[in-house]
Amino acid sequence: MDAVVQFFEVLPLPPAGRWPTADAIAVVDVLRATTTATMMLHHGAKAVIAVADRSLAQAIAEEEGAILGGEIGGLRPPGFDLGNSPREVDAAVVSGRVAVLFTTNGTRALCAAAAAGRAAAVAAVNASAAIRWLASSGNVIVACAGERGGTAFALEDFAVAAHLAQQLVQQVPEVALGDGARLALALPEPLRLARRARHAAELEALGLDGDIAFALRPDLVDLVPVVVNHGEGWARLEAVHA
Amino acid sequence: MDAVVQFFEVLPLPPAGRWPTADAIAVVDVLRATTTATMMLHHGAKAVIAVADRSLAQAIAEEEGAILGGEIGGLRPPGFDLGNSPREVDAAVVSGRVAVLFTTNGTRALCAAAAAGRAAAVAAVNASAAIRWLASSGNVIVACAGERGGTAFALEDFAVAAHLAQQLVQQVPEVALGDGARLALALPEPLRLARRARHAAELEALGLDGDIAFALRPDLVDLVPVVVNHGEGWARLEAVHA
Repeated sequence: MDAVVQFFEVLPLPPAGRWPTADAIAVVDVLRATTTATMMLHHGAKAVIAVADRSLAQAIAEEEGAILGGEIGGLRPPGFDLGNSPREVDAAVVSGRVAVLFTTNGTRALCAAAAAGRAAAVAAVNASAAIRWLASSGNVIVACAGERGGTAFALEDFAVAAHLAQQLVQQVPEVALGDGARLALALPEPLRLARRARHAAELEALGLDGDIAFALRPDLVDLVPVVVNHGEGWARLEAVHA
Repeated sequence: MDAVVQFFEVLPLPPAGRWPTADAIAVVDVLRATTTATMMLHHGAKAVIAVADRSLAQAIAEEEGAILGGEIGGLRPPGFDLGNSPREVDAAVVSGRVAVLFTTNGTRALCAAAAAGRAAAVAAVNASAAIRWLASSGNVIVACAGERGGTAFALEDFAVAAHLAQQLVQQVPEVALGDGARLALALPEPLRLARRARHAAELEALGLDGDIAFALRPDLVDLVPVVVNHGEGWARLEAVHA
């Protein structure tokens, strides 16, 4: 790996105000928005447009003739073509199409990150590719999407960020670390810990336990959804093979 | 211990907006505001008034004829009687007096917590007393003060929160846990980890390494500074022996 990364930080929550300066920002909403966005591109979607607001998502989908996917409270909202299940992303449906994705935490955090710097969606399924993508920038951040619109901490996102941190530091031991990254490095077996998250229990209660197992399997694909364009409340992501 | 605690959560940062509902909120700014507030009461101060703003702190100190202590960037601001060193709190100076304390993170978080519910200042030096105080309420939160006005994560505060979480769960294994508490419980040797915080390195660079060793020694005293009165930008804390 041709690493140039010099400083690495993990944000336990997306910043409420100004984001710190960074050359690359990876947003994690492993259950399930960033996992689903990754699988949409893997199954041939031309782009995923992450949208911060439901009605804007519907408007963009209509304008673009795009597939509309997402969730509110874990469930597919009325009028949406797809829910937010990474397992159920079907090449027959998304291949060659643009997909618009709206969720209550991950897509909002992606839009905020896109406004702050060069941003991407990362998850366990593309962890190693995400590390290669991050390591090619100098000052990098992994931002956890959290829950309740990014105001509350979500264990599963921090756990995946910790998995990324541990792999990155193994490969680039000399990288300087922020306090969030130091916490992440101290955490034993992060991907196991992710299963104990409150949101994992909620998805199980909805019969979606298959999504948890799927979303926490690392390195299923080698692409990173990277923001190529963005505006107020939306960010367009396309596949970068890293 | 006559524990009634039913739900326990750790907030990695103080909430930017609305605080979650809780019966008791413990604020940690171990380096050094909550440690210093504890030591002021231990050395006989009648009360500590935590103030969110420097000029308000100066006005309150003048009005109350109080000792004025605090820091900006680790150092005693001009015109203040004391800095923010828990080691340097002197009974000869504070005994029988009211102390006003202003710092850039901890006293702000205390004022915000006081507005949200029954609040106290906790640190390593009063960890066991803090656990006894917390365990007597049903729904409890430990909020980390963080840094940069509470917008950035501080490892040392989360580490002390993790120490509290681990002790509490040992004593009350049936307590329900939020995601922040689950992360805290997964952390090995939290008080050791606190020494690796960025802010610890900054204090060392200022020649204040003695404060770090002092602040991370658990259970030096058995009192908890509890908010007894508060208003816009200030909270008055008095000793509760727990």
